[in-house]
Amino acid sequence: MAQKVKLSTIAEALGLSTATVSLALRDSPLVAEATRERIKEEARNSGYIYNRRAASLRTSRSGIIGVCVSDIMNPFFGEILKAIENELDRHRQTFVLCNHYDQLSKQRAFVDTMLQLGADGLLMSPAIGTPATDIHLAEQNDLPVILIARTVDGCGVTSFRGDDSYGMRLAVEHLIARGHRRIGMIGGTDLTSTGRERERGYRQALADAGIEYRPEWRIPGPRSRHSGFDAVSTFLKLRDRPEAVACFSDLVALGFMYGLAREGLRPGVDIAVTGYDDIDEAAIAMPSLTTVANGQSEVGRRAADALLARLNGAAAVESVELITPQLKIRQSTEGVERH
Amino acid sequence: MAQKVKLSTIAEALGLSTATVSLALRDSPLVAEATRERIKEEARNSGYIYNRRAASLRTSRSGIIGVCVSDIMNPFFGEILKAIENELDRHRQTFVLCNHYDQLSKQRAFVDTMLQLGADGLLMSPAIGTPATDIHLAEQNDLPVILIARTVDGCGVTSFRGDDSYGMRLAVEHLIARGHRRIGMIGGTDLTSTGRERERGYRQALADAGIEYRPEWRIPGPRSRHSGFDAVSTFLKLRDRPEAVACFSDLVALGFMYGLAREGLRPGVDIAVTGYDDIDEAAIAMPSLTTVANGQSEVGRRAADALLARLNGAAAVESVELITPQLKIRQSTEGVERH
Repeated sequence: MAQKVKLSTIAEALGLSTATVSLALRDSPLVAEATRERIKEEARNSGYIYNRRAASLRTSRSGIIGVCVSDIMNPFFGEILKAIENELDRHRQTFVLCNHYDQLSKQRAFVDTMLQLGADGLLMSPAIGTPATDIHLAEQNDLPVILIARTVDGCGVTSFRGDDSYGMRLAVEHLIARGHRRIGMIGGTDLTSTGRERERGYRQALADAGIEYRPEWRIPGPRSRHSGFDAVSTFLKLRDRPEAVACFSDLVALGFMYGLAREGLRPGVDIAVTGYDDIDEAAIAMPSLTTVANGQSEVGRRAADALLARLNGAAAVESVELITPQLKIRQSTEGVERH
Repeated sequence: MAQKVKLSTIAEALGLSTATVSLALRDSPLVAEATRERIKEEARNSGYIYNRRAASLRTSRSGIIGVCVSDIMNPFFGEILKAIENELDRHRQTFVLCNHYDQLSKQRAFVDTMLQLGADGLLMSPAIGTPATDIHLAEQNDLPVILIARTVDGCGVTSFRGDDSYGMRLAVEHLIARGHRRIGMIGGTDLTSTGRERERGYRQALADAGIEYRPEWRIPGPRSRHSGFDAVSTFLKLRDRPEAVACFSDLVALGFMYGLAREGLRPGVDIAVTGYDDIDEAAIAMPSLTTVANGQSEVGRRAADALLARLNGAAAVESVELITPQLKIRQSTEGVERH
């Protein structure tokens, strides 16, 4: 490795003061943008590395935000993440990601790493079973937390999520309006606030229409495409098989539709199907999927903004900010044969 | 915030030496696992935070590995990542993730962050257009790099990827063996080594069978589901429309099959379709997708192992380690009507 490059080397090469170089490398608006870019270019070319570790012991901000969700491969989280990225990019915050796969130990290891690195804050969709004390621990160690998609009672911080109960009611009321009375619900569990809220919406819509809730028509399960596919065999064995199903998520619905087709049933014709999330794929699926747009972008954007406000001194407030979902009607509930 | 908890507080509470507590918190095998767990539990309960920032200025290892890919929402990368996670978990390395979306500036910002945090190493699938000097910069600053899925000429380090040219040849030879002569290729571009290699395999298989390459039957594009869906309109306008297509990836193939169905064509019956990657969804899709299993798990596992070897002193070697892919034959090339 070459000799260490110093600030003064860069300053000399460009005919600037070391103070200007130092400010520019910390992205200070005191230095004109064109000059900043020139300095960074020179720093890069000369192999200079700003030692943020040493610097972060001297100053209070590392410029790093941690983001932790159960599985970033789930497009629902992917879309929230894109909105978070946009927001943080605009504020020149770097972020690092972690999947916790709903394992508390993984989530804790990540939070510890963020504490140890002196991260500025944390956006997290808490793992199933997260105790409020885990969030208190981060907060007490000066790591502000904002929750996304899920809530933890007593956590003391703000959560941003879609109004899941209302959204599922929209889907089930739509199925009822299409003339269906035998309506099942596929996927999701009561281990997460999301699962509990969506099931509550399903049962409310049935109750409001005077339709009895049938426990055997509620087939819970993980929120994956495979889980939806696998639920078909249970579904087909039901007595008085439902003529419509409201699925916990789009992935579950898309897997369920694959499974129906495998058994020679036509989704949208023989069985009406709704999803939840309105991921990109919903509009091009075959049949296209009636679903509930969940406001992922708004969840991500507002959660990132709230965290940035915390970094700028706003106090922690325990509250749940609900984003209102919208129904998107497509072919999977139309009851019409399609090519 | 409560008063800072010291090592000695924990040691006293448990009746152990501070040296034992210190070793346990650094996961030293010198302390029995049960004792380590008891110490960590006490540390957690008392709110003790090990200051890795200060520690990493004193010692040479931070315990952090950076992982950077174009888009972790692509299941191809997701499956590589799971294998990496398994390997790093076993070696008690924490890792942090970043998407570069094939933007060099994002990739550079992440590499800089890793350098500044004193990360131990980097696993990356280099963004389109990554110059070898970007990898030299990391290496010269004591950040060992291993490449996954893509190669950069002159980078000086090891890359692990599937043998893309051979894999695509397997898919196209299978289509030829099924009796097809008019075979298109959908998706991918020549901007990545993967895209170039897969196209090379496609053209080789045609040439070996004495079939002329028709440039208009090569429809390039991004490697997304939407891109495959959108390619259908171009495909349907082709003169002498191909009767079979080899797609760049499973996502492209699945989107293409949605698009064919939308136009009243039966994938696997009217048009034979192959994918590439064998993602989880391929086996349950309707029709199930003939594809090339790409060895993602092996790529991830071996790349992580190679990086761990570098951390333990192995020298950098420029080489490309090819993992041999396998053909998986399913319904989408069977030519049989299915429910």
